[in-house]
Amino acid sequence: MKVFDIPGFPNPLRIRIVLAEKGLVSNVEFVKVDLPAAEHKQPAFLSINPTGTVPVLQLDDGTYISECTAITEYLDNLDGNPTLTGKTPKEKGVIHMMHKRAESELADPVGYYFHHATPGLGAALQPYKSPEWEGRVEWGNRQRDKAVAGMRYFDQVLRSQPYVAGDAFSMADITVLAGLIFAGFANIEIPEECEALKSWQANVQQRASVRNPA
Amino acid sequence: MKVFDIPGFPNPLRIRIVLAEKGLVSNVEFVKVDLPAAEHKQPAFLSINPTGTVPVLQLDDGTYISECTAITEYLDNLDGNPTLTGKTPKEKGVIHMMHKRAESELADPVGYYFHHATPGLGAALQPYKSPEWEGRVEWGNRQRDKAVAGMRYFDQVLRSQPYVAGDAFSMADITVLAGLIFAGFANIEIPEECEALKSWQANVQQRASVRNPA
Repeated sequence: MKVFDIPGFPNPLRIRIVLAEKGLVSNVEFVKVDLPAAEHKQPAFLSINPTGTVPVLQLDDGTYISECTAITEYLDNLDGNPTLTGKTPKEKGVIHMMHKRAESELADPVGYYFHHATPGLGAALQPYKSPEWEGRVEWGNRQRDKAVAGMRYFDQVLRSQPYVAGDAFSMADITVLAGLIFAGFANIEIPEECEALKSWQANVQQRASVRNPA
Repeated sequence: MKVFDIPGFPNPLRIRIVLAEKGLVSNVEFVKVDLPAAEHKQPAFLSINPTGTVPVLQLDDGTYISECTAITEYLDNLDGNPTLTGKTPKEKGVIHMMHKRAESELADPVGYYFHHATPGLGAALQPYKSPEWEGRVEWGNRQRDKAVAGMRYFDQVLRSQPYVAGDAFSMADITVLAGLIFAGFANIEIPEECEALKSWQANVQQRASVRNPA
């Protein structure tokens, strides 16, 4: 398999943690995509992923799979033992629900803030960000506020259970973690009083897959 | 099981089609949520779904599952025969990828346009839409343009395969269909030249689950 991505970025990190969790690191060849140079917005890359995002997984039969949720579903089910996306219908439902909330209430708003209300990744990406749109900074700042509200929500959740989707580490934890790392990069601080969230983060950062992702 | 929703709305329709596809209609009791009166933004509803969206599924053990993807994963796996979300790792990966694109490139932008650049569901919901934000109409209109680009993308996909994720009907078809129905409600027309998309829509609308959803 091949993974098209760039090290050190939030969504690539999600899949690199999944690869480490599943013991698949040695099965993958990485191909670097130059995000600051807007390589992911050019025709060559858009032909493998029309939405212009990384990471993209290429299977040995040539099939391209993009979107972190889809890549995680594929990798987690390869060995018939889905430890990250749930085994029972109820586990699958709860994990997908919390994972979606981690995207919509935390990771996505951080990304919108970073790319629209700050210089983001720099000049080469400006033409893809509608710079002429006057309201974009105000909109981006609203997304920052939404991300902070998301942190408070996950803090509440983690006051009564050890992981984001319940008693076991899952895809939802990886998504919240990537959202918090992205937030740190964008200088959005976790509110002081979110002690359960901070404690969970310190715990998750000790996992082997998070200390040594692919 | 109980489903909290409102008939005739796009996301509720997605789950009502899933229930019909899976033969689960008679297992569910529906509880109406008054969206135009903003019932889904009040504390009672937020206590069962903090993101304030419908539908929400309540299991017999009391667990609440929200988010269409999560509810579909639960319902589709109940009988051990996941016909809508994929059986093999590759099917799961491709279906989740196309389903996510259906949300991010079509259904979500239609919703943003409808709720921000038009009167949407009316006055009671205005306080939840940041009406003081000056740029919201321009942003909403950009989302309308994105949805039309999404229609052109799915038209291209459907020129070479019968269903959105390949040879079989799946969750991804339900999401594109709901997106198109929502677009029609918001007066966003399918471009004339998208003949494959229109032909696919006419075909899918003949399915028993779509003609007679729960």
